[in-house]
Amino acid sequence: MNLLTNLECGYCNKKLDAGKIWNLCPECGKPLLAGYDLNRADLETTKNNLSKREPNLWRYHELLPVQDSRFRLSLGEGFTPLIHAQRLGKQVGSNSLFIKDEGLNPTGSFKARGLCMAVSRAKELGIRDLSIPSAGNAAGALCAYASLGGLSAHVFMPNDVPRPFIAECRALGGHITLVDGLISDCGAKAAEEAGKFKRFDVSTLKEPYRIEGKKTMGYEIAEQMNWELPDVIIYPTGGGTGLVGMWKAFFEMSEMGWISSKKPRMVSVQSEGCAPIVKSFHDEKEFAEPWLDAMTIADGLRVPSAIGDFLILRALQESQGTAIAVSDEELLAGATTIGHTEGIFACPEGGATLAAFMRLRENGWIKSDETVVLFNTGSGHKYYHLWDK
Amino acid sequence: MNLLTNLECGYCNKKLDAGKIWNLCPECGKPLLAGYDLNRADLETTKNNLSKREPNLWRYHELLPVQDSRFRLSLGEGFTPLIHAQRLGKQVGSNSLFIKDEGLNPTGSFKARGLCMAVSRAKELGIRDLSIPSAGNAAGALCAYASLGGLSAHVFMPNDVPRPFIAECRALGGHITLVDGLISDCGAKAAEEAGKFKRFDVSTLKEPYRIEGKKTMGYEIAEQMNWELPDVIIYPTGGGTGLVGMWKAFFEMSEMGWISSKKPRMVSVQSEGCAPIVKSFHDEKEFAEPWLDAMTIADGLRVPSAIGDFLILRALQESQGTAIAVSDEELLAGATTIGHTEGIFACPEGGATLAAFMRLRENGWIKSDETVVLFNTGSGHKYYHLWDK
Repeated sequence: MNLLTNLECGYCNKKLDAGKIWNLCPECGKPLLAGYDLNRADLETTKNNLSKREPNLWRYHELLPVQDSRFRLSLGEGFTPLIHAQRLGKQVGSNSLFIKDEGLNPTGSFKARGLCMAVSRAKELGIRDLSIPSAGNAAGALCAYASLGGLSAHVFMPNDVPRPFIAECRALGGHITLVDGLISDCGAKAAEEAGKFKRFDVSTLKEPYRIEGKKTMGYEIAEQMNWELPDVIIYPTGGGTGLVGMWKAFFEMSEMGWISSKKPRMVSVQSEGCAPIVKSFHDEKEFAEPWLDAMTIADGLRVPSAIGDFLILRALQESQGTAIAVSDEELLAGATTIGHTEGIFACPEGGATLAAFMRLRENGWIKSDETVVLFNTGSGHKYYHLWDK
Repeated sequence: MNLLTNLECGYCNKKLDAGKIWNLCPECGKPLLAGYDLNRADLETTKNNLSKREPNLWRYHELLPVQDSRFRLSLGEGFTPLIHAQRLGKQVGSNSLFIKDEGLNPTGSFKARGLCMAVSRAKELGIRDLSIPSAGNAAGALCAYASLGGLSAHVFMPNDVPRPFIAECRALGGHITLVDGLISDCGAKAAEEAGKFKRFDVSTLKEPYRIEGKKTMGYEIAEQMNWELPDVIIYPTGGGTGLVGMWKAFFEMSEMGWISSKKPRMVSVQSEGCAPIVKSFHDEKEFAEPWLDAMTIADGLRVPSAIGDFLILRALQESQGTAIAVSDEELLAGATTIGHTEGIFACPEGGATLAAFMRLRENGWIKSDETVVLFNTGSGHKYYHLWDK
């Protein structure tokens, strides 16, 4: 049983055949989203059987785009622990604080979810050569799943990317290009070569399936919290696929009757050195202006312009959430505090969620008895230079 | 229900009260092992309910030493994926090759299992200050669980340890001492300070509970293979706790009737630059001579003298297994091959298991249709310098 029905543009709602290969919407150039037949009676059985399934994201396979189980590549991605952060909670004034630790994914970050799905589906659709611009973690994840599936991976990273990211891609057999510039420059270079050499571009939200992998974070939070969603989710936002994906998952689960209609307030946290979503959220814009001179130690947040900006902003608005920028000092201190109280070596982006929590707790936007989930999107190991003094 | 009955010396069989704090056997100075009441009828129910439990090592809590669930510290350790390595198997002549990927543990290595258990039990017994000598991974794991439990961790590493290991301990709040020498010198320094400052020494096999955490690798392989053990397990051997722990687990499961009496042939792999177990196995000795001038890029294998040597050698002999040394070039090439075919960024010690497999396959000791499990004991991220050219 697999319920994928069609693709639909997230902006102009054009419908497309999900059996064909697509990048962006051919009408308006915006991201495509996968649709499913969610009105099947047997989905209640699926929900009831989940607890016996393997602890990875394929436990939700009926709601994922890969049709044939032979193409479901797996390295144990997803179903990461949701840690009840009691020592940390006490320190920062929360009775119900949780950390979703995405550092336990293959390749050490949440990027494994999206690339697992994109590569699996690409292989199912007969694609052989894949291409990606990346701040580091997505590149490693693409190389891993491409190697596992026997596909080729071409990765484009800024030339100041920390060296562990390059070494990882090398160990995983990727073809590496370092670009003098930001991730947007990497995107341009990757796109140019993709056209020339007929590679499939798996950039953030420029194909329809990475978001399907990322949405499983939403399914997992629901399952791990016994189908009662938290009051607030704080998510470090670069390209924003995870936030948009979770928001999509909550609607799917509502439609299937797996959860009540109560949904969390979604919070985007960015760095003060690159905060396009924060600015446009507070300016009440539909799209975000590209951020000039983007600069932050949290490489995953150094995304000056996100193609899914309107989807992120829509989720923040619909959920009555907010967006907040924190300084590099605050986010690094946040990661260290998580390490010292909960034993999780968080990446700087993960640290940003704690910094945001502390600001929002202080100004009363979050109450002490509200249930809050912070996303540590990856392990700190590949950013060890930040603690290497 | 918890079935811990007593501690028993692995060498002289002296029995001790498990409710008290012990390091080595007070009679003969050898490691202590935990004993359980395995003849309980309700253990069959435990086995049948496992599939519904959380995917971490506490799913086997009845067979673990921590009595009170409040002391079961957890960051999502254990129940790591067992990957059916089909592309790699085809390349190296195996129809049934598996990789147990311990890199997905908290802190990125199998050390999380042992230290999770040692710290949890130490906390239950009222201990506050912990001390460890380490080649790197055990130090990070100790710091993580000590922070989570609110205990203090003092870690002693060789001063040539790769810098990511130091950064990790710093981010996790450990007290770090770098020692000019090998891990044995770190052990001496740690012991000296432990005496002076009344810290509890959680060195490999010098307290009874790290091995209990490590033995869960054996329980997991059995559960993940539907209670039919593989023909061969290849394990990179430094201190050897994991190998000894799995061997103990297999006997416990046999006694409970969870598995048949058929057990795997256990293989220790070491580096040619430090192979005390390999040498003494082939010399048919009961104990291993300390290795002089130990040198290998696989830091976890740079253990010139293991206090559990006789337990390792006994398991190899009883299982009709073997021991084999590979070169640093072979083990590094092994890790890269795993990365290029299966998408796992393996640590050099994990790479050694593939190098050993290839040798044993070539000389016919392993047949093409035998089921073999390779242990990738950690992720390559903290060893990225080996791929940083």
